[in-house]
Amino acid sequence: MSKAQSFYDAHQGTLEKAIATNRSREFWSPYPEVASGRIYGETANIDGRARFDGYLGQPFALEVPAVAEQVGEEESPYGLALNIGYDRPDTEALIARQLAAMPAWRDAGIEARAGVCLEILDRLNKRSFEMAYAVMHTTGQGFMMAFQAGGPHAQDRGLEAVARAFAEMQQVPQSASWVKPQGKHPALAMQKTFRVVPKGISLVVACATFPTWNTYPGLFASLVTGNPVIVKPHPGAVLPVAISVQIAQEVLAEAGFDPCLVSMAPDSRQSPVTKALAQHPAVKLIDFTGSSAFGNWLEQNCPQADVFTEKSGVNTLIIDSAASLKPVGRNLAFTLSLYSGQMCTTPQAIYIPRDGIDTDDGHLSFDEVAATLSGSISKFLSNPEVAVNVLGAIQSTDTLARIDECAGLGEVLLASETLAHPDFANARIRTPLLLKVDAAAIETYSEERFGPVTFLIATDSTEHSFALARKVISEKGAITLGVYSTSDSVLDQAQELALDVKVALSCNLTGGVFVNQSAAFSDFHATGGNPAANASLTDGAFVSRRFVVVQSRRDVPPPAAE
Amino acid sequence: MSKAQSFYDAHQGTLEKAIATNRSREFWSPYPEVASGRIYGETANIDGRARFDGYLGQPFALEVPAVAEQVGEEESPYGLALNIGYDRPDTEALIARQLAAMPAWRDAGIEARAGVCLEILDRLNKRSFEMAYAVMHTTGQGFMMAFQAGGPHAQDRGLEAVARAFAEMQQVPQSASWVKPQGKHPALAMQKTFRVVPKGISLVVACATFPTWNTYPGLFASLVTGNPVIVKPHPGAVLPVAISVQIAQEVLAEAGFDPCLVSMAPDSRQSPVTKALAQHPAVKLIDFTGSSAFGNWLEQNCPQADVFTEKSGVNTLIIDSAASLKPVGRNLAFTLSLYSGQMCTTPQAIYIPRDGIDTDDGHLSFDEVAATLSGSISKFLSNPEVAVNVLGAIQSTDTLARIDECAGLGEVLLASETLAHPDFANARIRTPLLLKVDAAAIETYSEERFGPVTFLIATDSTEHSFALARKVISEKGAITLGVYSTSDSVLDQAQELALDVKVALSCNLTGGVFVNQSAAFSDFHATGGNPAANASLTDGAFVSRRFVVVQSRRDVPPPAAE
Repeated sequence: MSKAQSFYDAHQGTLEKAIATNRSREFWSPYPEVASGRIYGETANIDGRARFDGYLGQPFALEVPAVAEQVGEEESPYGLALNIGYDRPDTEALIARQLAAMPAWRDAGIEARAGVCLEILDRLNKRSFEMAYAVMHTTGQGFMMAFQAGGPHAQDRGLEAVARAFAEMQQVPQSASWVKPQGKHPALAMQKTFRVVPKGISLVVACATFPTWNTYPGLFASLVTGNPVIVKPHPGAVLPVAISVQIAQEVLAEAGFDPCLVSMAPDSRQSPVTKALAQHPAVKLIDFTGSSAFGNWLEQNCPQADVFTEKSGVNTLIIDSAASLKPVGRNLAFTLSLYSGQMCTTPQAIYIPRDGIDTDDGHLSFDEVAATLSGSISKFLSNPEVAVNVLGAIQSTDTLARIDECAGLGEVLLASETLAHPDFANARIRTPLLLKVDAAAIETYSEERFGPVTFLIATDSTEHSFALARKVISEKGAITLGVYSTSDSVLDQAQELALDVKVALSCNLTGGVFVNQSAAFSDFHATGGNPAANASLTDGAFVSRRFVVVQSRRDVPPPAAE
Repeated sequence: MSKAQSFYDAHQGTLEKAIATNRSREFWSPYPEVASGRIYGETANIDGRARFDGYLGQPFALEVPAVAEQVGEEESPYGLALNIGYDRPDTEALIARQLAAMPAWRDAGIEARAGVCLEILDRLNKRSFEMAYAVMHTTGQGFMMAFQAGGPHAQDRGLEAVARAFAEMQQVPQSASWVKPQGKHPALAMQKTFRVVPKGISLVVACATFPTWNTYPGLFASLVTGNPVIVKPHPGAVLPVAISVQIAQEVLAEAGFDPCLVSMAPDSRQSPVTKALAQHPAVKLIDFTGSSAFGNWLEQNCPQADVFTEKSGVNTLIIDSAASLKPVGRNLAFTLSLYSGQMCTTPQAIYIPRDGIDTDDGHLSFDEVAATLSGSISKFLSNPEVAVNVLGAIQSTDTLARIDECAGLGEVLLASETLAHPDFANARIRTPLLLKVDAAAIETYSEERFGPVTFLIATDSTEHSFALARKVISEKGAITLGVYSTSDSVLDQAQELALDVKVALSCNLTGGVFVNQSAAFSDFHATGGNPAANASLTDGAFVSRRFVVVQSRRDVPPPAAE
């Protein structure tokens, strides 16, 4: 039995459960999110930290056909010196090598490719602590979030992509017998075979804030459907990608395939390579997470490729009314604090009627609502240990500068403060900035302000809030829409808005689930139907465009008459 | 029960069988291809003919929101005067009307929409004779082909699209209960709903040669997924589209929906409307069958839409060897004669070693092979009744001119002759032109020559044939590749070529199936993986890109502990 097949056999149960859960959309995950030694092994944390420390100041070892240059300019948002060197492969040599390796990977078949992917995910899971440190010290996420979002939750999204693509490929039989009756004459009979054939080389452009979570879906969807993959990491967050690629290469080689089928093409801010890679004629698939400007450029300038983007948007909350505002405040305090709003799902625009809202505790003015929200955030962050772990650090100095620039955009309800980290003196830690603006200032709040910047927007009414949200989401896009209301008709209106502007809706979240969280197998991340993204994690369109079906048919003798 | 639901209930069995057959890819069709009164009713032919005659010289009645102008310039390739007038709707009025109708169609749900689509197909089937006359006298197809390809086979492709899209939509549950355990704490619990939401207005650009077969897949895939559809017929073949739209409008209205959800936007050669429609911001889906020049323009200039194209290509045959050449000749005589090669699947380039081929009857020189092929065609067409019915008429005067222009491109092995039609004195009937060229004349045979023009290409060897086919198909595309060989290793090589250039392969066809035929539910028409087409009829990518999923979620109390 081939190694790939034995990987498949070992993980087949996981795959089947993933396919089933992806259909039922219930809760499930094979990768525990609790960073516990009892689950991952008593020495897992120490071992992971040691592996991470071992990378620092060293060249990172990956299989590369021909090295063009050494790059490496990562800086930990916590101030830790990384100084890791990475090989940038020569583009033509890499593409030639991948094209040469593609037929064997294609011909290995669906189960062998799935087996390799599932084994990669399993080994990624076992190295979740190491990954957590790598994600923490590149993205700035707090350790716990780096463990979960960078590890098990990213692995979940990778598995989801494998499962969805596997199910899609399985819809086509490997062979068919086609017998067409011809009345009194012998039937026409043909034997047909059908083969899944990859599109070509797949370029996955990773982002600096979620280098694994946003990368694995495209990477694994492309790989399992037979396409060689080049991951182009953000210069600021290479290590999590490098570790992922290293594990993929290790499994591919063990299974007898060219490890370069998954490769990394790192670059520097001074000499970016993405545009040249994206327009290479051999590149047929592009996955991108990042700015709208670059995502739109990719969509419009790479006609040789199918382009899947997740871009900027203006995530939105509409507060109409609430049974009690306190739990709303608690929920939103965590939502707005988590990773200092550096998530593609964090609300930026919160629409509230200028005359205030009704609650079961009576009517609250706009300013009372605003005070509850800012008070909840302040209270939540008053525990410094909680604060630094939930906020994490600011990934880029651009975001840091933006926070200060934005302070002049409205009436400051809550100023962004700099917090000290007990362990990292130079950590860039900032609390959320909360601004009050009038609905008329649409130019201000309808531009994405990536980072911990939130606008409370005073509107004429909830009707007005809906109209503004409709306009802004239609034009600028959004991945999340949250609504708070005790009125069924307002919730119905929210549902209508969500359907019209094609955005995922969360209603009245006051518990332990937050509008900016998206669970694999159950939640679709982005719809692909508004300007914030042209793809969805993970729907049929995300996987089915990565391969074609090539059939072969031949005459056979008609079956004997009965 | 709603009318739409009763349509669904009436046709549910057909839908389920279509979904199952689409997965098994065996033979099946609910729409009989035999133009028989015993199946379609004793007066079906007379009634159909009468309905067709009734359209001549009249304005055609369709629901149109606001009429911009009257158009109509169809001419029967058989010389019959048509003089039918069609309303061209005002574009903005039509789009406004369709956008207003879209939410009700979206909210009707999957089964209601499928019910309406299935009822439309059923009524189209009942009017197959009428459609046959309409298709014959616009495309030039012979009556029997017009009946089959314009009627039941087109309906099959429409049903296939409905079935594939229905199965795709069904993969997403309408609701889910998500319960995430939290150790000793109460579980997190959410109720989620998922809704299929259409992309927007769907533009289907029809061609002059197969105005129903190539139109129904896009039309029905878009309609069943909730998108309003505008069909833009070719100015030379409007009537088959008009009848189809009329039936769709009738069923939509009966079911309580706006009939304009399916509309027609005819234009004239002098004032084409396609580009303006295709770039309209409300148009989110475009299906196109026609020239590579226009298809490529659509792919590159309509970034607001998902574009599905079937374009030009150079369909290919490679003759390496044969048990006996006679049945090959008989098979190819029909293949090359059928509808005078005006099919997107008819071979244009036939590669044969210049030193000839081996057969069980001994070695045959290139010229002997060529003589067998031309002799087979001549013999097949020697019966005038068979000839005119199989050849049909030449749809466009451009094609007519092309045949004569091409006669100078090589050594004429078989001249294209003009045949008289017993019933239509002015019918444009031409037999196939067969040319011998050297492999070096690649510029000549690698350009698509739409119509009855075939090149027999003298190559150094079968290896050389494969290399040339690989180059031409990679660069120009192809929908079909046929190979004749008695050698397993050559057939393996053919399979490798097919996988590499992503083209459907037919091996050693000598019976009653022809390389240019493609059966719904079983054969994928085009792969979408080479320059001849970016889409495939009908794969997952063809349907899944026509809708997005919008979810809504809310907290619910955790389930009681057991």
